[in-house]
Amino acid sequence: MNVPQNRLGLLIVVSGPSGSGKTTLCRKAADAGEAIFSVSCTTRAPRAGEVHGRDYFFVSEPEFQDKIKAGELFEYAHVHGRWYGTLKSFVIDNLKRGVDVFLDIDVQGAAQVRAHDDELLRRCHLDIFILPPSVEELRNRLAGRGTEDAAAFELRMTNAIAEMEHWPEYDYALVSSTREEDERRFRAILTAERMRSGLWR
Amino acid sequence: MNVPQNRLGLLIVVSGPSGSGKTTLCRKAADAGEAIFSVSCTTRAPRAGEVHGRDYFFVSEPEFQDKIKAGELFEYAHVHGRWYGTLKSFVIDNLKRGVDVFLDIDVQGAAQVRAHDDELLRRCHLDIFILPPSVEELRNRLAGRGTEDAAAFELRMTNAIAEMEHWPEYDYALVSSTREEDERRFRAILTAERMRSGLWR
Repeated sequence: MNVPQNRLGLLIVVSGPSGSGKTTLCRKAADAGEAIFSVSCTTRAPRAGEVHGRDYFFVSEPEFQDKIKAGELFEYAHVHGRWYGTLKSFVIDNLKRGVDVFLDIDVQGAAQVRAHDDELLRRCHLDIFILPPSVEELRNRLAGRGTEDAAAFELRMTNAIAEMEHWPEYDYALVSSTREEDERRFRAILTAERMRSGLWR
Repeated sequence: MNVPQNRLGLLIVVSGPSGSGKTTLCRKAADAGEAIFSVSCTTRAPRAGEVHGRDYFFVSEPEFQDKIKAGELFEYAHVHGRWYGTLKSFVIDNLKRGVDVFLDIDVQGAAQVRAHDDELLRRCHLDIFILPPSVEELRNRLAGRGTEDAAAFELRMTNAIAEMEHWPEYDYALVSSTREEDERRFRAILTAERMRSGLWR
């Protein structure tokens, strides 16, 4: 009998506004050995203590443009004058080795990944949107962080609300409640997705 | 902001050979209030203590044939001279009310349900195949039950192995290990599927 035994890794794309808790959820799961974070490549300079290949792959601007042209990136974005992108090779090598990979990216990046028509990705890919329980609670969470002025704060709120409108594009919508419950439900998605029959080989 | 709040129910089709533990998994989850069992309709006579509408909908042979012709059944089968089927109305009413429904059926029934091209079903349907860890373990589990003769036992094994070949058709393949781990993973699938963005309205 053909019992499923070896599986591909999962590419777990996670989005949500700042204040949704998405990065903490991924970090906790990664620390528990559930998955690794994708290592992005970027044109920004390394900061003190950052290691090439661990924190980022640091590349020059021409190198980054070459990667775009060669189709070597799953998604990329220009942020504050610097380029950031996800290397297909990094992700695919890990998926083939059965390693689950987190991609903590925004809605534009997630849409780029989702748009790929790729057999491996179709089997391995899922995306999760983490939502705050309400706009009021998001306001509280973001306000708690802050020393910015009122205008900057309102701009962040407006951007966050605009981003949240994209949750129906994602496979899963996790509406945040308590930290423990969020973790339980986030881990349940990983546990369930690892049993997808399409993941076995 | 459009936060997901009300969801449709899930139609959770569960298959697996006898000895896989599938009925126990569903029963435990149902007892915990996670979902209800679909109430089938049948042409067999009620046994002592069985209640119409709770254990089965007991119907006559002509009534059953009328339901087939009218397309009122999601799936049906003829077993030991009696008809058994799943009422669309029972399932759909519950899905619309947000109630999750278990359908504990064999691979032929599951294939019939999967073949429906229905918008509601596409949003609410998932299927899970419960596999024993190995053929040897299945043999142990089935042998432990029994007072049947060797030929009948081997026929049951042959049928179980043939049924198991169908696991790749299912969304999820749960390979049984300990009872606790099986329950944890089965519940994880339910928890995760309830966060499917397509389930919200």
